Amino acid sequence: MSDKTEIYLDYAAATPIDPRVLEAMKPYLADVFGNPSSLHAAGRSAKIALDDARDAVAGFLGAKASEIVFTSGGTESDNLAIFGAARQNKKNYGHLVTTTIEHHAVLNPIEHLVKNEGFVADYVKVNRAGLVSPEDVVSKLTEKTVLVSVIFANNEIGTIQPIVEIGKAIVRWKKDCGRKPAEPPYLHTDACQAAGAFRLDVNELGVDLLTINGSKICGPKGVGCLYVRTGVRLEPQILGGGQEWRLRSGTENVAGIVGFAKALELAAVLREEENARLTALRDKAIAGLLKIPKSFLNGDADKRLPNNVNVTILDIEGEAMVLYLDEQGFRVSTGSACTSANLEPSHVIRALGLPYEAAHGSLRLTLGRWSKEEDIDKLLAVLPPIVEKLRKLSPVRLDEKHYA
Amino acid sequence: MSDKTEIYLDYAAATPIDPRVLEAMKPYLADVFGNPSSLHAAGRSAKIALDDARDAVAGFLGAKASEIVFTSGGTESDNLAIFGAARQNKKNYGHLVTTTIEHHAVLNPIEHLVKNEGFVADYVKVNRAGLVSPEDVVSKLTEKTVLVSVIFANNEIGTIQPIVEIGKAIVRWKKDCGRKPAEPPYLHTDACQAAGAFRLDVNELGVDLLTINGSKICGPKGVGCLYVRTGVRLEPQILGGGQEWRLRSGTENVAGIVGFAKALELAAVLREEENARLTALRDKAIAGLLKIPKSFLNGDADKRLPNNVNVTILDIEGEAMVLYLDEQGFRVSTGSACTSANLEPSHVIRALGLPYEAAHGSLRLTLGRWSKEEDIDKLLAVLPPIVEKLRKLSPVRLDEKHYA
Repeated sequence: MSDKTEIYLDYAAATPIDPRVLEAMKPYLADVFGNPSSLHAAGRSAKIALDDARDAVAGFLGAKASEIVFTSGGTESDNLAIFGAARQNKKNYGHLVTTTIEHHAVLNPIEHLVKNEGFVADYVKVNRAGLVSPEDVVSKLTEKTVLVSVIFANNEIGTIQPIVEIGKAIVRWKKDCGRKPAEPPYLHTDACQAAGAFRLDVNELGVDLLTINGSKICGPKGVGCLYVRTGVRLEPQILGGGQEWRLRSGTENVAGIVGFAKALELAAVLREEENARLTALRDKAIAGLLKIPKSFLNGDADKRLPNNVNVTILDIEGEAMVLYLDEQGFRVSTGSACTSANLEPSHVIRALGLPYEAAHGSLRLTLGRWSKEEDIDKLLAVLPPIVEKLRKLSPVRLDEKHYA
Repeated sequence: MSDKTEIYLDYAAATPIDPRVLEAMKPYLADVFGNPSSLHAAGRSAKIALDDARDAVAGFLGAKASEIVFTSGGTESDNLAIFGAARQNKKNYGHLVTTTIEHHAVLNPIEHLVKNEGFVADYVKVNRAGLVSPEDVVSKLTEKTVLVSVIFANNEIGTIQPIVEIGKAIVRWKKDCGRKPAEPPYLHTDACQAAGAFRLDVNELGVDLLTINGSKICGPKGVGCLYVRTGVRLEPQILGGGQEWRLRSGTENVAGIVGFAKALELAAVLREEENARLTALRDKAIAGLLKIPKSFLNGDADKRLPNNVNVTILDIEGEAMVLYLDEQGFRVSTGSACTSANLEPSHVIRALGLPYEAAHGSLRLTLGRWSKEEDIDKLLAVLPPIVEKLRKLSPVRLDEKHYA
């Protein structure tokens, strides 16, 4: 990192590219530059790299190569899943089910379909620990439901949803209705935050559509994929030369795709060791932060990502805390980077049942491949005086017993 | 290039990344990895790079930074222009005008709007030289026309359309109808193939929407932009965190965007010298190819890209010629790479008025930054015996006087 004193604890917003990933990308940023659609050798070399990357990603997901659609990232993949499934099947299906803690890349397409295209959506609530129940999900299904979209692991509070159970419950529901497996409702999960920490076998998970991307797993930005189970009918959203099984046109970003595949491969290799290491760091950070008076953990303590810490510290503004910590070299966040320009409190924290004024002081630390124990020690040392200072400035004095 | 004997003459399909572009990208593939939406210093460093790149691209186009929307490439930009303009304005406008020689990234979204969303489209024909007339374009306008999309320079035959005149004619038409400049019809141009060779000042051109990308100008794949004139109302097509002025969500591909901006900067610096050099090579190649009996040039000889050669050689299959040349180290194409998997003859060549059977034998050479005179000499030496061999195999004997 350019600033030697920098302590980066915001891996959920963006990750450095692993040097091994960059190494894998280099040939495709230099000598192997052909268009994979070209018939000649320069095109075929690029096509081989693309095919190999597709096989690798399919292998990671326990899927077929023909089920992998490369895109420009998680947001585009989520949009393709939602708009694609809804618009392709709109004649017979007009209902969507999701949760109150999805990323905006899921919530906003659904809102658009409701506002502009005649769809109806139901939002499954989470409990105080940030978890949905499979029963609640299934209770929302109607014969018109085309898609259920549930985030695998939340980007703010790190809670891991019971996707396997939700999948099974949907399969039972379909069976009871006499629906074939390839018929809606389809189950989509945004697994961008989970891909570094979990084995994501689409058959074990029972999902029909799954989103992952490069920028959250020490791979490049601007690349991701949507897994599309054979038989699931999607309307392509970007039309042109017919690349990616006619589901996503545009010359393929070969270097990015190769890097994305390599990042997934590394994640799988490092997973076990990294999860153990990060879980220990995470729990140390949580324990340390909770020593601050009037603080509490957001999201379930166990069913959470190994790298996610999200603590509310009452009576302070999260943004101010981020900036004070930043001055001291700590890169942390409050809520999601994608909405950090927006000063409204996080919809995810609000969804936990916290009142508006208590949703402002959330501190998110997300750890990763280069996080060290001393990073946590240093943060825990500098934070208390910052909290003290900010509380002196704050006009708010909340009663913690209402929120903890 | 990896193969020392390779002679790459397919710059319209894909270009190598200029080493200076890769150098500019490197910091953003390594140390500067923050999410531009993050509040902290790592995010701000990425945001500064993004803003600088946006300023540079805006400068290249004579536009404002607020008019540049970064995307994943030319296809996505074309889709955003067409779907975005059509869907945003569908209450009052339901008509589109384009040409018969557009890229599929323009044709297919328009076809989709016609088939599925109630729009009507008119297609302006080109003359035998592959040029549209501004009068023909304006003759198609109705009070319902929302968008006119005309490719700046064709990707197959290199013809340069009279965009300035088309823009002026539309402005006159609007004036006559009492329309304000910011009201439809909007003029969009796909300038991907032109960005390396032309000064693309959006105000001189009089366009409202303009597509360019990285992969055709010795920049990276997977990145491009859409210029959107202030006041033009587009519906965003990818929804989420609200990046890119809320017109295109998703974490920005910072390294790719920086590379794209650098590639445009280099193109502007090198333009004059390269255009003169490539025009001479092009004309030498055309003259040499036309010595082959029963051959003729596709597309206007003068109003064409400095790097584009497209010659029909009767009585042979273009694909076979590409593969024979490939065996000898020459990377060339017949038609567009984006549809090379499709053995139908090119819609562009067909649009010139050539019959089906004569549209099969088109050879496209597209030159670029590393093309040398000896590349052309070598190609002109090896091609005639290939043509002779293929003609012996061909069951077809066309009468050239019908097509030349």
